[in-house]
Amino acid sequence: MTQSSSSARFDVLAVGNAIVDVLAPCDEAFLTQRGLVSGSMQLVDEDQSAALYADMAPGVEASGGSAGNTVAGVASYGGRAAYIGKIAKDQLGEVFAHDIRAGGGHFDTPELEGGAGTGRCLINVTDDGQRTMCTYLGAANQLTVDDIDAALIGDSAIVYLEGYLFDPAPARAAFEAAAAAAHKAGRKVAITLSDSFVVHRWRAELLDFIKSSADIVLANEAELAALFETEDFNAGADQLAAIVDIAAVTCGEKGSVIIAGDQRVSIQTYPVEKVLDTTGAGDQYAAGFLLGLARGLSLEDAGKLGSLAASEVIAHWGPRPQVKLSDLATEKGLTL
Amino acid sequence: MTQSSSSARFDVLAVGNAIVDVLAPCDEAFLTQRGLVSGSMQLVDEDQSAALYADMAPGVEASGGSAGNTVAGVASYGGRAAYIGKIAKDQLGEVFAHDIRAGGGHFDTPELEGGAGTGRCLINVTDDGQRTMCTYLGAANQLTVDDIDAALIGDSAIVYLEGYLFDPAPARAAFEAAAAAAHKAGRKVAITLSDSFVVHRWRAELLDFIKSSADIVLANEAELAALFETEDFNAGADQLAAIVDIAAVTCGEKGSVIIAGDQRVSIQTYPVEKVLDTTGAGDQYAAGFLLGLARGLSLEDAGKLGSLAASEVIAHWGPRPQVKLSDLATEKGLTL
Repeated sequence: MTQSSSSARFDVLAVGNAIVDVLAPCDEAFLTQRGLVSGSMQLVDEDQSAALYADMAPGVEASGGSAGNTVAGVASYGGRAAYIGKIAKDQLGEVFAHDIRAGGGHFDTPELEGGAGTGRCLINVTDDGQRTMCTYLGAANQLTVDDIDAALIGDSAIVYLEGYLFDPAPARAAFEAAAAAAHKAGRKVAITLSDSFVVHRWRAELLDFIKSSADIVLANEAELAALFETEDFNAGADQLAAIVDIAAVTCGEKGSVIIAGDQRVSIQTYPVEKVLDTTGAGDQYAAGFLLGLARGLSLEDAGKLGSLAASEVIAHWGPRPQVKLSDLATEKGLTL
Repeated sequence: MTQSSSSARFDVLAVGNAIVDVLAPCDEAFLTQRGLVSGSMQLVDEDQSAALYADMAPGVEASGGSAGNTVAGVASYGGRAAYIGKIAKDQLGEVFAHDIRAGGGHFDTPELEGGAGTGRCLINVTDDGQRTMCTYLGAANQLTVDDIDAALIGDSAIVYLEGYLFDPAPARAAFEAAAAAAHKAGRKVAITLSDSFVVHRWRAELLDFIKSSADIVLANEAELAALFETEDFNAGADQLAAIVDIAAVTCGEKGSVIIAGDQRVSIQTYPVEKVLDTTGAGDQYAAGFLLGLARGLSLEDAGKLGSLAASEVIAHWGPRPQVKLSDLATEKGLTL
């Protein structure tokens, strides 16, 4: 770290699409009949969202958004977390803001007034816990450079950016501004690749951004493969190591690998009785890993915090922790 | 039954406060500091609701409303269910309507436009699974006799009314109209006492209504005690038997007792690994019990269907079934 976390007001500030999730069970046929690729995220417009919702089973609503989930995880570990993202002045926006703040996160991005409603992500979950997401961005799509609070960013040890923000053009500009503000203040910039389809859409742009602006990269196997167009994990890891200081690549139930120069640190998963809903697994891994780095833990311990948070979230419905992760860490002998 | 269920389009039509629940964990101190009585339901205004919400932990949102939960349970058992209740034309209203319809329930009460928002119930849940509810009725408060579709009621074997509707005056008139329409069509009228505080507030009115209009009563121990102002369960049961044909009184983990004339049928609970959230337990008991009666099952089998549905809902967060109750019934050898 250029500056230690203790000199920063926040451990992690995340910038992302502010979204409320609607989660409902489905079977595989539901996905195939609608041409939905299991495990993927796709953007839909308001009409497509309404049509899909009408077909979905009764659901539950929970604040989501990848980076928002990470902020909730950081706060649940007792970390100091902040969020930048765009909600509308409506009921779902109220829910989103409440849940970030009630968890201990700082959030004061101005609400969008009179435009689109708060974004929502329709998540269909199959029996094996796999989630397939269709996102209507709504107000989240209106995040602009004006929403990037440089002072807040300068006061955060790590600024964490969602790869999903590469989709909406104004958000991408906000993304660049956030990275610039972080580096100007001597802070670290982390990015998640978010989704293999995002990587396919924005491969060149993501590579440029990582090379020019990222210190830490989070990805899963499929995203790593998409980024370097190789199915060879080790080759991909080497290429990633060549362009960024630290990376963590999650491999589902096989665990994760942390990459830093020539180091490759393997982290195991924590056992889970039954995987109910994998929504938020990557986001919670990021929460533990980034908080660990912000607090100056070893790569291994940071990775364990990531694994532990992921194991909690996949054992229940919804993308955010339902118990205090700080208690879980204590149970497992991990100290922050 | 005056007419058998097979001659009716719906097994159960429920009339209630259409409400979306916001569920969050809390500790006992949170309740006592705010003067909230553990396990109770109280009405709050919009400002009180906003102030309490601001203090609550991050939550999840799920369609609720006592009778709405019962409709979801009836449909989950494969029963034909319908609902009458008032939502607003807003995001939470959309969620409520979706969840009733997606579960297979019929729902076409006109939305309130330009008035209060859809009602919400803030539910704080302690570690023992006990829930304490503060309800802002919002649009639900605007249910009137105009919303009572007599043809729909005439086509339903049992019309089920929420005791909670005794609180809003216009809803009480709707309640009376629904009962009258049911009896005119030769259908049965069921009522739940809903909450001991509701019974304290409207004791005389509830007794009058039961005597004049109810064929079936659902209650828990505390509500029975409040109705007859006696802590003697058997004395209360005898008094109830004297004024209604069939009643079911739930007694938490001790099971339930079905009362019909001189008969007293004890029903055991189904074992639950861990009680997480008792929200909806009474509503789901009502679902199984009323569907059983509508289908002409024995009192014992109807009670078992009630117990089974209650056991499912208390083992997870949220007031409605998360698995198909019809599958659970098959597993337990109960046939509908």
